Amino acid sequence: MSNEVHMNRAAALALEKMLGGSGGPFGAVIVRGDEIVSEGWNQVTSTNDPTAHAEVTAIRQACAKLKTFQLADCDIFTNCEPCPMCLGAIYWARLKHIYYANTRVEAAEIGFDDDFIYKEIGLDPATRSIPAIRLVTAQSPIPFAEWVKKPDKVKY
Amino acid sequence: MSNEVHMNRAAALALEKMLGGSGGPFGAVIVRGDEIVSEGWNQVTSTNDPTAHAEVTAIRQACAKLKTFQLADCDIFTNCEPCPMCLGAIYWARLKHIYYANTRVEAAEIGFDDDFIYKEIGLDPATRSIPAIRLVTAQSPIPFAEWVKKPDKVKY
Repeated sequence: MSNEVHMNRAAALALEKMLGGSGGPFGAVIVRGDEIVSEGWNQVTSTNDPTAHAEVTAIRQACAKLKTFQLADCDIFTNCEPCPMCLGAIYWARLKHIYYANTRVEAAEIGFDDDFIYKEIGLDPATRSIPAIRLVTAQSPIPFAEWVKKPDKVKY
Repeated sequence: MSNEVHMNRAAALALEKMLGGSGGPFGAVIVRGDEIVSEGWNQVTSTNDPTAHAEVTAIRQACAKLKTFQLADCDIFTNCEPCPMCLGAIYWARLKHIYYANTRVEAAEIGFDDDFIYKEIGLDPATRSIPAIRLVTAQSPIPFAEWVKKPDKVKY
């Protein structure tokens, strides 16, 4: 199947699920070669899960199906440029290519924060609109030190 | 309870769950006033979910418990600076403050990609190591147009 077919499927999911009350107008499809591995759509408001974006739900489902935490031989098609959360998820899942249609600027025009969050990420953590404050305690360095020493750790 | 107590709890979760084989050495606690709303820890490798970072799991659990998709009166304590995925999730959940101990640079030193992903996010989408390719199709603009017209949409 062509890239256009996969993108139209992502858009069709976005439309159908949004009209059904699932959440925002976002759909995604994960593809390996010619096979559709998973389909995702925005479920934020219907499931009370702010992380349930189309890309994240598609990644979770693909990993569950393939019994892996990495999707290195897969591509993702999404009807909107991934927000920073979804882009991060795509990096952790090690997808190969991202195909997107609408941009973060177009998402901002219909009321979504994607572009705003992209701008915030580049700022100094302490000066963002959600300030990140460093707080080192007696116990906070221990997990990292023990990770280094763990003989049977599963890297990701 | 003091901020130090919450941070030590995040670190204790990170240590306990990592030693138990759940995933990487990361824990998080979400707090509202004096109440601990939820606790999260990394579960990437044990659940085959690359999105199951400590902050994401804590946010999902807090939202499920409070039956909301926004946590505007809550703070998050995490033993490591949130990666871009988790930072995006924190923005979508509208948390108030982030308290963190180890930095993205320290995470890189023990083998995690947080700092790398922060650098990738600032690049032009087409030139990143996971290239993002724009692909507009006949149907790709429709979901956004229909969202604008939807009379009963739930914004987030």
